[in-house]
Order: sequence, then C-alpha cells, then structure tokens
Amino acid sequence: MTKSGEFSFIAKLARDLAAPGASLSLGDDGAVITQKDMHGKGALVAVADMAQAGVHALSDVSAADLARKALRMNLSDLAAMGAVPAYYLQTISWPHDHDAAAQDDLVRGLAQDQKAFGIALIGGDTIAGPGPLCVSITALGWANEGITRRHGMQVGDDVWLSGTTGDGFLGLQVAEGQLDFLPADAQAVLARHYHFPEPRVRLGPLLAPHVNAMIDISDGVLADAGHLCADADSGLVLCPDAMPLSDAARLWVQGQEDEYAARLSLMGGGDDYELLFTAPVEKRKTIKQLACDAQTPVTRIGTACEGVGLFIRDAAGQVVGVNAAGFTHF
Amino acid sequence: MTKSGEFSFIAKLARDLAAPGASLSLGDDGAVITQKDMHGKGALVAVADMAQAGVHALSDVSAADLARKALRMNLSDLAAMGAVPAYYLQTISWPHDHDAAAQDDLVRGLAQDQKAFGIALIGGDTIAGPGPLCVSITALGWANEGITRRHGMQVGDDVWLSGTTGDGFLGLQVAEGQLDFLPADAQAVLARHYHFPEPRVRLGPLLAPHVNAMIDISDGVLADAGHLCADADSGLVLCPDAMPLSDAARLWVQGQEDEYAARLSLMGGGDDYELLFTAPVEKRKTIKQLACDAQTPVTRIGTACEGVGLFIRDAAGQVVGVNAAGFTHF
Repeated sequence: MTKSGEFSFIAKLARDLAAPGASLSLGDDGAVITQKDMHGKGALVAVADMAQAGVHALSDVSAADLARKALRMNLSDLAAMGAVPAYYLQTISWPHDHDAAAQDDLVRGLAQDQKAFGIALIGGDTIAGPGPLCVSITALGWANEGITRRHGMQVGDDVWLSGTTGDGFLGLQVAEGQLDFLPADAQAVLARHYHFPEPRVRLGPLLAPHVNAMIDISDGVLADAGHLCADADSGLVLCPDAMPLSDAARLWVQGQEDEYAARLSLMGGGDDYELLFTAPVEKRKTIKQLACDAQTPVTRIGTACEGVGLFIRDAAGQVVGVNAAGFTHF
Repeated sequence: MTKSGEFSFIAKLARDLAAPGASLSLGDDGAVITQKDMHGKGALVAVADMAQAGVHALSDVSAADLARKALRMNLSDLAAMGAVPAYYLQTISWPHDHDAAAQDDLVRGLAQDQKAFGIALIGGDTIAGPGPLCVSITALGWANEGITRRHGMQVGDDVWLSGTTGDGFLGLQVAEGQLDFLPADAQAVLARHYHFPEPRVRLGPLLAPHVNAMIDISDGVLADAGHLCADADSGLVLCPDAMPLSDAARLWVQGQEDEYAARLSLMGGGDDYELLFTAPVEKRKTIKQLACDAQTPVTRIGTACEGVGLFIRDAAGQVVGVNAAGFTHF
C-alpha cells in the first residue's frame, strides 16, 4: 500500500484500538510495558498465532473477521496458560486491491473484540503484498494465579472440556455450503462458532490454580488430548459418548448413519478453541463452581489412566488405543 | 503443511532456537517471562514487524534470509527504543511447496543471528498457505537506561545518523541486477546491506540516556526525519552533503550526472535500518565516545531548528522545505 495509506491506517488503529498508557503511541517503534504494571506475583505470558485467508477462514473472508479470529485464537492460547489478556501486537499483510472501507471495518471489528475481552493494541506493522490477507497477532497476558501447562496430568485425574465439541468443524462445512439440510438457525450457530470462536478468557485464569494440565483445542480434541499425553507419565481415556454437543451438532449427529463414527469425526475436527484440562477428582466441586462463576459450561469427558498415550471407549465400550495411524485395539 | 511436518518443524525450533528458562517449551501455548527477569529500573519493550517475499525481499528469497531480515528489522526497532534484545516470537506462513531443507536452513540462519544479537525464541506459530513466504516477528527487549521516543527533539539539537545512507536502497538495485557496472566487491557490500541490515543493538541502549529523540531508518532518511518533526515543536535541517556514504555508495554517486540529486535519492530510499537521533550540542563528546564503545560510526547530518517540518540545504546552500509534494522554497 502507499505510505500515506499505511499511515492513515495506523492513525485509525491508534485512535480506536491503542492501549492508553501501555503503549507510548502506535507511531513509536515499540510498545512499552512499564514496571508498575508488573503485579507482585505475576508473570507475563506471550503467545503468537497467524491466520490467513483460505487457511483459517474462507478465501473471501473480510479483514475484520480474519483479524477477530486471529485475536480470538491468541486469547484462547492465553486462557489455556491461565493468563488474563492485557495487550496485543498485530501485523497484517493486505492484498494489493484492498480498500479503505476494509480497514475501517477491521478497526470496528477489533474494537468490539477488545471491549469484549479486555485487551488493547500496543503495536504492530502493516504491509501490502501479492499474497492473500494474512494477520499475525502476539498477545500478552498476566498470569497472577499460576501458570498452567500441557504436561502435569496425573493418573486418576478427571479430564474436562469447556463448551461443546465439533461446532467449529461443522461451522466450516456450513460456511462451505455443505450442510444446507440443517435448519437455518442451527447453521447460523455453527457458522458463528467457526468464524468467531469464543475464547475462554474468564475460565482459564480461574482454573489455573486448580488444574494439573490445560491446553486449548485448536487441532481437535483427539489431537490436543494426544498433546497432553505426549509430555505426561499417564495415559488418557476419552468417552465419545460423554462429549458435550451443541443442539446444532446433535442434530447433525443424529442424521448420520453411524452416530459413534460421527462423534469421533467431531472429536477429530479443529477450530473448537475450548479448554481441555485435567484435575484431581477432589476438585470436582471447585471446578463446577468456577465454571459457574465464568458462566461457561464444563463437562467431564474422560480420565487420566495408567499407561502411555491416548485411548477411547469404542462403540462397544471397549478401551482402544488411538495413534497417528488411527485406532488400535488395546 | 501436514501436522506431522508442522510438529517436526516446531521440534527443530525448540531444539536450536528456544530460550532456556524463559519459555516453558515451544510446545506450550505461550511464553512466560517471569517476574525475576524484571530488572529494578526496567521496562519491557515490544515491537512487531512482518516481512514478505516479494515485498521486503526478492520473490525467490530463501526462508532463512527472509526470517533473518524480519528479525533484524525488529532488532532495529528495539535499538531505536533504547532496548536490549531479549526474546522473540515468530509466526511464519510457508508456501505449500516448501521443503524440509528450507526449514533446516531457516533454523540454522536464525540460530546464527540469535547468537550475534543475544536474543532467543520463546514462541510462535507455523502455517502453510497459498501465499508467498511471510514471516512476522514480535521482539521483546529490556529498556533499563530509559526509553527513547520519536518525539522530544529540541531546537538546537544536533541531528546524528549511525552508519551510512542508501546502501539498502542501492543493495536492492544490485539484487535486481541493475548496478552491474559497479565493481563486484562494491555490489557485494550493497547487496549484503539489503539482505542483512545490521541493527544497532549495542548503540541504541547506550545512547538512550543521552538523546532527546531517536528513530530507526526503515522508510528512508527523509521520511523518518519527517516522523521526528511530526511530533516535535521544532523543525529539522539536513545537509545532503554531510550524509555519510559507504565507499560503494560513493562510487555510485560519483557516476551519476547530478551528484546532489543522487545523494537526495539515497536519502529517499528505504531499508537502511540505521539510527537517526537528536541530542544537545553539549553531548557531542559523550555520543562519540559511546559510538566508539559500540564500534559503530556516527555522523552529524543536521540541526533541529526553529520552524515546523523538514528542511534541507539545496545544492546552492539554500534552506528549502521538504513536504510530501517534494521540495519547496523556504
């Protein structure tokens, strides 16, 4: 884009999105987080995710929607670390043919999400290039109540999941026009979940002092549960029948010939951005109370077990191993 | 890219580039900078820049070279803020047809720059998409000796520039095969400056307590001097004849019909990544000493003056105004 176009876009970002105090100004070369912001117990957590049109969204996605999705992907990572959102930096590559209306739209969309999630822009970069729209975000948050990690799962832990499973996976199919047989309102719920995942920014920090391991589901429940196992001394058994489904996903499942296989495909799909975590059995009451406080549903979907790796209960109730090659009998 | 390809690339990053201690592990959802790293006086500075093949480098640039340039662009921003490099997060979008050798090459190249500049990777994201290679970096640094900003220039300040002018601008022309008439060694110096700008990571933090304003030259001396003026209560007069030139750039200038116009074009070109700063006259000795300490040449190229905006001395020694429309008589 032209230099004047770039500067006018930066001016819009500075006017509507910049964090007062934390950034000097978006015109400066960098953002500054001063010592006075450093809480006594706190640690600063930094996460980064990139979203590209045609990869994390449809090729004709608006800049506003792609940027909001990128921000929410980052917020989900912060939540999984137990960190409260504070600041973000955004780099964006526009296609050469973008217009000023798309910039305004992006600023409006991000302003809405900043308000919803309590985060503010402190810096970034904006370029125009030959490629598709691409947004990269680095988000910073404060972990005051302890930091949660992927590893740390203990044998006997309950395995919990926030929200529902597979709505992002089905939402992509709705966006591609593949689920037209579903009622319009069900399609709308699923598409919204795909376009605008709801990062669990309240639940994550509340859970942090109580859980042994936590991760956000971006690659699908099965893949991310596999990540929990990779660094742990225990295995993990998931019950497909216990997976929480939205009404819309339930409608889809019951329309499939093999409901069990349908549930498994939801567990294999990405774009959920829910929290998967493990905690001792004696924490059940606490976790339910915190989930109520965060107004976020949580469901027990399995148990950390002796053994190594990921297992599921098959349609007959047998425990079978899951690996990269598919499902294998235990 | 495939999930297994992505994970193997992340494993390489974790093995060769991750900061020990600061990041939990690159497999986690985020990087953590703990309170114990927070120096008494310090503030954390965050900067972000994106580099894309075909925009900040030739379209056929290697991933290693593009990533190193992106890192150096960020390091230059940190230097301009007076911050010492500490950590960075990298997001990268690979074209679909990239291979594992390109990944290894990138890791090797970044490892080399990490060592040279004292910075370590703490997180990021890696995707593959339909677009050209694109690298976005967020760098974090500590400003222990004060933070320098773009505004703050005072009437009477000396205006200084580190290094030389226009080598990046000429280096791009070399890379495009336009300056074949220059000797091979001059071409090599210029091309290297374009591909691998030398961020002034030692000089910036040393200067921070002594300068009134500082910025890095990424858009060209004229444009970035204009930025210093935009937020200041004073104007700025630059002397094109005083601009420091490399031997290679001098060869190019003396081959041009209008040497004055040639110097101006070097001042208009981008990709220099030098520090432009202003300081009181009584700081001259200190600044020269610090520049010696940092083994970085600095040159006085002008003065902050009464008035508003950017001025230069024209070929006849007259002071003329510079604005977006070109040069205007004062």
